[in-house]
Amino acid sequence: MTIRLGTSDYGVTGVRLLRVTRQEGRHDVKETQYSIRFEGDFQAALSQGENRRILPPDTIKNTVYALSRQYPVESAEDFALHLIEHFLTYNRQVTVVHVEAVEDAWARIQQGGKPSAHSFVRSNAELRTARLTGESEETTVRAGVENLALLKTAKASFEGYLRDPYTTLKDVRDGILSASIRADWLYESGVSDFAPLWHGVRQALVESFAEHESRSLQHTMHMMAEAVLGNFDRIQEIHLELRQNAYDPVDLSPFGMDNPAEVFLPAEEPSGVAQVTLRREEAV
Amino acid sequence: MTIRLGTSDYGVTGVRLLRVTRQEGRHDVKETQYSIRFEGDFQAALSQGENRRILPPDTIKNTVYALSRQYPVESAEDFALHLIEHFLTYNRQVTVVHVEAVEDAWARIQQGGKPSAHSFVRSNAELRTARLTGESEETTVRAGVENLALLKTAKASFEGYLRDPYTTLKDVRDGILSASIRADWLYESGVSDFAPLWHGVRQALVESFAEHESRSLQHTMHMMAEAVLGNFDRIQEIHLELRQNAYDPVDLSPFGMDNPAEVFLPAEEPSGVAQVTLRREEAV
Amino acid sequence: MTIRLGTSDYGVTGVRLLRVTRQEGRHDVKETQYSIRFEGDFQAALSQGENRRILPPDTIKNTVYALSRQYPVESAEDFALHLIEHFLTYNRQVTVVHVEAVEDAWARIQQGGKPSAHSFVRSNAELRTARLTGESEETTVRAGVENLALLKTAKASFEGYLRDPYTTLKDVRDGILSASIRADWLYESGVSDFAPLWHGVRQALVESFAEHESRSLQHTMHMMAEAVLGNFDRIQEIHLELRQNAYDPVDLSPFGMDNPAEVFLPAEEPSGVAQVTLRREEAV
Amino acid sequence: MTIRLGTSDYGVTGVRLLRVTRQEGRHDVKETQYSIRFEGDFQAALSQGENRRILPPDTIKNTVYALSRQYPVESAEDFALHLIEHFLTYNRQVTVVHVEAVEDAWARIQQGGKPSAHSFVRSNAELRTARLTGESEETTVRAGVENLALLKTAKASFEGYLRDPYTTLKDVRDGILSASIRADWLYESGVSDFAPLWHGVRQALVESFAEHESRSLQHTMHMMAEAVLGNFDRIQEIHLELRQNAYDPVDLSPFGMDNPAEVFLPAEEPSGVAQVTLRREEAV
Repeated sequence: MTIRLGTSDYGVTGVRLLRVTRQEGRHDVKETQYSIRFEGDFQAALSQGENRRILPPDTIKNTVYALSRQYPVESAEDFALHLIEHFLTYNRQVTVVHVEAVEDAWARIQQGGKPSAHSFVRSNAELRTARLTGESEETTVRAGVENLALLKTAKASFEGYLRDPYTTLKDVRDGILSASIRADWLYESGVSDFAPLWHGVRQALVESFAEHESRSLQHTMHMMAEAVLGNFDRIQEIHLELRQNAYDPVDLSPFGMDNPAEVFLPAEEPSGVAQVTLRREEAV
Repeated sequence: MTIRLGTSDYGVTGVRLLRVTRQEGRHDVKETQYSIRFEGDFQAALSQGENRRILPPDTIKNTVYALSRQYPVESAEDFALHLIEHFLTYNRQVTVVHVEAVEDAWARIQQGGKPSAHSFVRSNAELRTARLTGESEETTVRAGVENLALLKTAKASFEGYLRDPYTTLKDVRDGILSASIRADWLYESGVSDFAPLWHGVRQALVESFAEHESRSLQHTMHMMAEAVLGNFDRIQEIHLELRQNAYDPVDLSPFGMDNPAEVFLPAEEPSGVAQVTLRREEAV
Repeated sequence: MTIRLGTSDYGVTGVRLLRVTRQEGRHDVKETQYSIRFEGDFQAALSQGENRRILPPDTIKNTVYALSRQYPVESAEDFALHLIEHFLTYNRQVTVVHVEAVEDAWARIQQGGKPSAHSFVRSNAELRTARLTGESEETTVRAGVENLALLKTAKASFEGYLRDPYTTLKDVRDGILSASIRADWLYESGVSDFAPLWHGVRQALVESFAEHESRSLQHTMHMMAEAVLGNFDRIQEIHLELRQNAYDPVDLSPFGMDNPAEVFLPAEEPSGVAQVTLRREEAV
Repeated sequence: MTIRLGTSDYGVTGVRLLRVTRQEGRHDVKETQYSIRFEGDFQAALSQGENRRILPPDTIKNTVYALSRQYPVESAEDFALHLIEHFLTYNRQVTVVHVEAVEDAWARIQQGGKPSAHSFVRSNAELRTARLTGESEETTVRAGVENLALLKTAKASFEGYLRDPYTTLKDVRDGILSASIRADWLYESGVSDFAPLWHGVRQALVESFAEHESRSLQHTMHMMAEAVLGNFDRIQEIHLELRQNAYDPVDLSPFGMDNPAEVFLPAEEPSGVAQVTLRREEAV
């Protein structure tokens, strides 16, 4: 019997950065949090504590700061591409670099009806994410959104499902459908207009959720994924995870009242959950 | 020696509620979380477990649901006033009712450039709060905001402070000022237009933060409080707490680079903190 | 009309510190997080941004580090007393110093049945807290515990409570009583054996919860507070807050099963809540 | 071009359960949280909202409650095996069932030096986990631990690492090594004594961390994984993730003080991170 090394990586998480661009009469800010992981030949480091091939996490962090000085404020995807190029160029021992980025949404304050030149308010609970994997030959770019919470009060039913002896659920018509959404999509190589694409995909997700005649969480999820692949032909694959926030109508009959779908009890935590991956394939 | 009862209260927290109003072609939703506490003569319940004067938390919760059916979607302050009136009327043993409300911000989805009739996205990290205290004679109404995070890249200095042997801080000019803000203000009695007032106060807080030539966190905090009392004469008192999010310029000199206030390291947690209460007083 | 300054303070939160004592064959560690706030004459700083009387939060933080080098590992209360003395001595402009401390519980690892000399595991979800307020004449010391979660499966009922038209609750016998507890008690002046006292009070809270024939959350809370004041005569006052974690028996009758108090549904968040303050008073 | 379905699953998360066993003079409790996901042929549900093959999340939840009545309090792994058998037997449309379980650690209260018959305190920040995947032919069982935080003040260095122009780190000797650990290991088929095995593995992880002469986070991680595979021959694979909590010595030289590895600044969040998978292989 022997013990074999499977996969291993190391790196640094939570590298926070605020980048300010100061132009006459207008400042821009971008706050982002990076995680970076290396794969490579680290057998000696793991089994013998031989550190010669280990670039310290502290150095990885410094590199983020130093490179951020050299590049103008740009999208997290672009900056991650610079990081990957740097690390692969100067670290032969590293075969794969993973970079993840999460952006904080600072929005310009409206002051007397006009946008402030230099003041911002944190605007959103949802997060814009990016996830890149770089190897010598190729780098893949995935973008995404997390904590996108949607809710609709119409066009949401759940009927005709399988029943067994433990089924007590009643058919849902005129219900509420609400979910926290995590999405993650893969661009084909060569894509570079990351910011407008991200906003377009987010809007497609939101609009397809709103329009869809939902017959289930899964049904809506699938439709949202299709809407993205159908509208953005440079996206090769999308992964969606929906965590359903249950809103149960409160039973007011003990108090002599009806409840015509007006008073709902929001669950404290999501419970129903579904995920799907859809891929574009070339016709043969 | 004797043991004396000081203050005591009991109640229920986290009573979640989604209220839907369905009009032809347009649904409205409001999601709110209520906490309710009673003060009163509960000595026998406390010391002997004599429950005759204890309205169960479960009943308090049911009351929120039942009353929410009877009133149209309205501001949390208005609904809290109904709750207080109900509890004081039917519960002689209760002398004080505290109601706290926190609102979730569901914003209407834009669909093809037009607002959706029935679909919503959770829009904000910040929270709208209300805090009412009802007694037989009088009810006080406080409104507030939590988690309002602001940041400015200009008009922020910190100089001329006290130095002692443990002082290593350098003067700050062209720095970044960022804070998470909790505000809480007291309306004079008779105020009823809670929603427009809240939006006005929030905007006054945000604009005064942006405009102010800040010499310190405290200085800006005081100015924000003054701006609210100065612009809204039906507000009698305001309490502000600012938790400063430090953004330190990264020292890039070890890498042979300068850093002209462009690359900042956001602290993970707030550290500086300040609070103030300002009150309006009649001239004598 | 004039605007008057009410209370105000400023300071620093989240000052983290790990203190190691290295003796031959045995290391000790204590990790603590301090918050420090100053009250005093800060009118000019607030209204004019005049910082001459403001000791920067950064300096306050440095002082914690520097003083921690000068004192051996000791209880947070003792160290907070040193901090207060330092700040009041060297800062005439400060009239009140508040220090709060929260301790992380690192427990010694058992290694081959014996305690390790230098390795530790984070042992507890609950937190030991201290809260001191120092003025020129007097310093008050409060100690406490947070997140102490207790649960009992016997000696817990809730009956004979007030009923109104919104009451649907059924009497509870053989129920489960569970609560998350926050306690905070005031020592008389001169107390100095903080560590054994804290452990004694915590044990008194836990044992009285277990023994008590509970008729309600409030009943148990009051009994716990009495147990502390009854057993520790150098404690002048105790404040307790219990947040009840509801455990509802699952209704298995739709599946043709009974449920003899065996299967319970834990609520996701506390809902019932109660608090009390008890004080010791001299007989007249 | 066509769009192809990749993987998809659905289910329910956060199914909380407290199970009480009442014997004369002794109650036992076990609180667990289950997540259950189904894979199978759900194409019609996804693309057309055809729900005939969808067992509702609500029914899955009910099944957990109903089955928990039928089985005595036992380990989460055993109960998950019952769930998997049930779902695969009665749901032909389901090809794979995933069950995840997280246990809350309720420990018996010590009362007058003896264990209480019916009262418990939540004892640990760390979590015991189980992760099972059931298919018609075979079920795999993985157990694990999360949030296991360890710290050592000796036998921890980091030297001889790769340096580049962005390296500013100094060699670490007599440092502090601390990490939050997530472990997950795979049992060979036929294992059934889950509780003692779990406690054994956890102790092996803890002891190997304490004993090890660490040259890096990775080095210690690898040694911990080896210790488990070396001592438990029914474990086929282990995955470890360590998130390093940095403790930096505070520079007290600006205050004219040295710091002989006594005063450390704990980082607020983990930053260094490493993971590894080790597998046992048959010699050929």
